[in-house]
Amino acid sequence: MSKHQRILIIGATSAMAEATARAWQTEGPCRFHLLARDAQKLQAISQDLQARGAEVASRVLDILQTEQHAPALAEAWQYLGEVDIVLIAAGTLPDQAACAASVSETELALRSNGLAIVLLLTELANRLQAQQHGTLAVISSVAGDRGRASNYVYGAAKAMVSTCLSGLTGRLAAHGITVLDIKPGFVDSPMTAHLSKGGPLWATPAQVAQDIVRAVRQRRHVIYTPWFWRWIMLIIQHIPLAIFKKLRF
Amino acid sequence: MSKHQRILIIGATSAMAEATARAWQTEGPCRFHLLARDAQKLQAISQDLQARGAEVASRVLDILQTEQHAPALAEAWQYLGEVDIVLIAAGTLPDQAACAASVSETELALRSNGLAIVLLLTELANRLQAQQHGTLAVISSVAGDRGRASNYVYGAAKAMVSTCLSGLTGRLAAHGITVLDIKPGFVDSPMTAHLSKGGPLWATPAQVAQDIVRAVRQRRHVIYTPWFWRWIMLIIQHIPLAIFKKLRF
Amino acid sequence: MSKHQRILIIGATSAMAEATARAWQTEGPCRFHLLARDAQKLQAISQDLQARGAEVASRVLDILQTEQHAPALAEAWQYLGEVDIVLIAAGTLPDQAACAASVSETELALRSNGLAIVLLLTELANRLQAQQHGTLAVISSVAGDRGRASNYVYGAAKAMVSTCLSGLTGRLAAHGITVLDIKPGFVDSPMTAHLSKGGPLWATPAQVAQDIVRAVRQRRHVIYTPWFWRWIMLIIQHIPLAIFKKLRF
Amino acid sequence: MSKHQRILIIGATSAMAEATARAWQTEGPCRFHLLARDAQKLQAISQDLQARGAEVASRVLDILQTEQHAPALAEAWQYLGEVDIVLIAAGTLPDQAACAASVSETELALRSNGLAIVLLLTELANRLQAQQHGTLAVISSVAGDRGRASNYVYGAAKAMVSTCLSGLTGRLAAHGITVLDIKPGFVDSPMTAHLSKGGPLWATPAQVAQDIVRAVRQRRHVIYTPWFWRWIMLIIQHIPLAIFKKLRF
Repeated sequence: MSKHQRILIIGATSAMAEATARAWQTEGPCRFHLLARDAQKLQAISQDLQARGAEVASRVLDILQTEQHAPALAEAWQYLGEVDIVLIAAGTLPDQAACAASVSETELALRSNGLAIVLLLTELANRLQAQQHGTLAVISSVAGDRGRASNYVYGAAKAMVSTCLSGLTGRLAAHGITVLDIKPGFVDSPMTAHLSKGGPLWATPAQVAQDIVRAVRQRRHVIYTPWFWRWIMLIIQHIPLAIFKKLRF
Repeated sequence: MSKHQRILIIGATSAMAEATARAWQTEGPCRFHLLARDAQKLQAISQDLQARGAEVASRVLDILQTEQHAPALAEAWQYLGEVDIVLIAAGTLPDQAACAASVSETELALRSNGLAIVLLLTELANRLQAQQHGTLAVISSVAGDRGRASNYVYGAAKAMVSTCLSGLTGRLAAHGITVLDIKPGFVDSPMTAHLSKGGPLWATPAQVAQDIVRAVRQRRHVIYTPWFWRWIMLIIQHIPLAIFKKLRF
Repeated sequence: MSKHQRILIIGATSAMAEATARAWQTEGPCRFHLLARDAQKLQAISQDLQARGAEVASRVLDILQTEQHAPALAEAWQYLGEVDIVLIAAGTLPDQAACAASVSETELALRSNGLAIVLLLTELANRLQAQQHGTLAVISSVAGDRGRASNYVYGAAKAMVSTCLSGLTGRLAAHGITVLDIKPGFVDSPMTAHLSKGGPLWATPAQVAQDIVRAVRQRRHVIYTPWFWRWIMLIIQHIPLAIFKKLRF
Repeated sequence: MSKHQRILIIGATSAMAEATARAWQTEGPCRFHLLARDAQKLQAISQDLQARGAEVASRVLDILQTEQHAPALAEAWQYLGEVDIVLIAAGTLPDQAACAASVSETELALRSNGLAIVLLLTELANRLQAQQHGTLAVISSVAGDRGRASNYVYGAAKAMVSTCLSGLTGRLAAHGITVLDIKPGFVDSPMTAHLSKGGPLWATPAQVAQDIVRAVRQRRHVIYTPWFWRWIMLIIQHIPLAIFKKLRF
């Protein structure tokens, strides 16, 4: 067993990923391989984690450039040797009205939040299966639980990811790998900076990070974060269709 | 009101689409605009429907060529004037093992069964909303209800479609449009020709067609076809994860 | 059709029954037959309803004296001619600790809230079935939805009633009779005078009465009152048993 | 620890109880205290279990004579010392049409299958709580899961029992006691001798006994037996009310 936790993070500059990386490093020494689109932020986060005692390598990756997935993962495996935890936190929050008005906006939203993630999962599943151990943790969204008029494009992409993770959970369990689907509700982060926030439903990235760290440790398969979103979504899923179709939330 | 039902079918050469078109023509005079990839089959089906008394126009469309969506739909609207029913039946049944082994196979499966459909829905939603009437019926699959180890790529694409339809149901209800998500179980068609079939769970395209015709008439929003798949999927969705992840069906 | 609503109320002195009777009288002229255990309160409520313009007859009935059920109902039918609405509001809120400690307390709680009600329902079902019209509305409780450590005796009795009503719904629907199961949450009434109250979960009898009047008018079969208890109980029913058995609410 | 399993069975002459007692004795030496209404059958079963090597005491008890509960249980505890397992299998299968026609038939059915059981549970809960160990297993029925037109009196009584058991599960878990609610479907026994039987839904008492023995060993809280009844009842509970009320099963 390695003396470090060996952790690969894709979308490492997201607020939730950054908070989770710090939380892991707080728990014990980590070696991180970080992938993200924004070189400058990536460098800042790498340096911060190094200052906290972690070993860190990084590489710029735009997950929409799917031909870069394989070389980026190869490099990650080379640096880390084997990988104990993969965390995928990449994603965007598309504007539903813009998507409704534009096929190309819709396509971009679906590719960023859905297609590119499933293609990454295809490669990662095979690499983890070959290792016969590890955890594959992916941030999807409560939005995937039921498509709503106000954000069904985002929801559709996230439903694709969650359904893929459900299938991978079974496939990879037979090889000793734990798949974790992380479903955050409202998180106060740069991604949601344009929304009016506050109130008890909003969580901080640090709170979400604690939930992710615990869920990985406990080898859970699906979590809602904060926990009460499980019950909010239970209710939303049970609203009769005749009423649901009149709601505009 | 038109003396014909004006019906646009995308993926018109699928066995379920063909059977449904015939069933509609049996109920009363129809004007069809048919879109499909295979020119030869498309012509055969057009001629068959004409022989049954329908007015038919058709055009070859590979839905993967998304830049062709807009002109194809424009032509359909031009021919039909307004559209009473849109039926999307396009799709493929990907080989899960091939998808697991190949990112490009996975991408093709996701694009054919998920991305391209949602992009079509984006255009169709706007066209139907402008009309302020019509039914938008889409064949998804029971496979989208829960991702299983044996076909999660197909399931992920279909979950994307169903989640999008759920959101469109609400958005378009406010404009007088009915959205229908059709979830077939096992259907004995060319798409499943390589599978061993028979037994009470398998239905014919003609049976599915009857269910679609009735559901459109009754302005339903979600149907399972045959009906008992609703209950099969209810059970599958309720199997505890600890057991579900060991199943290989 | 009668010029009056002809209404039989059993347990007429309960705060919810009283408020509902007033609400019905507000909607139009009513003829009430009131049954309750407490003669003095019964008279006060009768006079109040008469002062509001209703025709009222009453009779003292302790529902635990089950041999009195038949003559009391015979008298009610004689006075009212036919009965448009039956409301059963009889019941007590047993002390769970006392029930746990005493078989006779448990028996009293089960008889008052369960057995006696089902015996009344047996007679009422036959009388309404003979009429071929009418509504049979019964106040049960959210407590019957899942037995909790803190009040399972009360819950067990109410579950008996709700299960009986579920079966009667089907049996009597074939005869034109609507059965309504009314599930209140926390109601601020003399029955709960010993509990610390307040907060958004507590409703007044008048609020519950409005829900009952509306549900009878709409020929509903099951209501939670106030409405949000439906969702609270959905959550309570879905709490995993491993967690539920540790809860002490 | 005792060298015997010390087992108290109430309703010991039921076919399911007899088969379960034999199965327990097959697993290892047991000391039984058997209670039942029919003295002759009770003696026969006692002798059979003795012939199989068990130590057995028995006493005639009609559970409707509730004043006999306390002395009967006192005697059982005296014979067994402490009790490892309590199994309640007492009950009758009432005739729904007779119950609908007769208040006294309904009362008898409710008392035999509901009230008397909950009163027994009241005493047993306190005795087990004092011991701080043991399993309390009770045969209820799938009929309690949703009241149906064809047997709601039986269902109402069983719902009372299951709701009580749910509450006791939590109360007694804190004292080291495991409560088990056993929900059989159709069992081919003398109790169902008048029904036309056969087909895959019918189980033998021996099959049910195996499920009970396993569930007690695994410290389960709720089982359906045979297992597939869990899924049948899931479906029955999810049938929309508008359809359910037209069903006559």
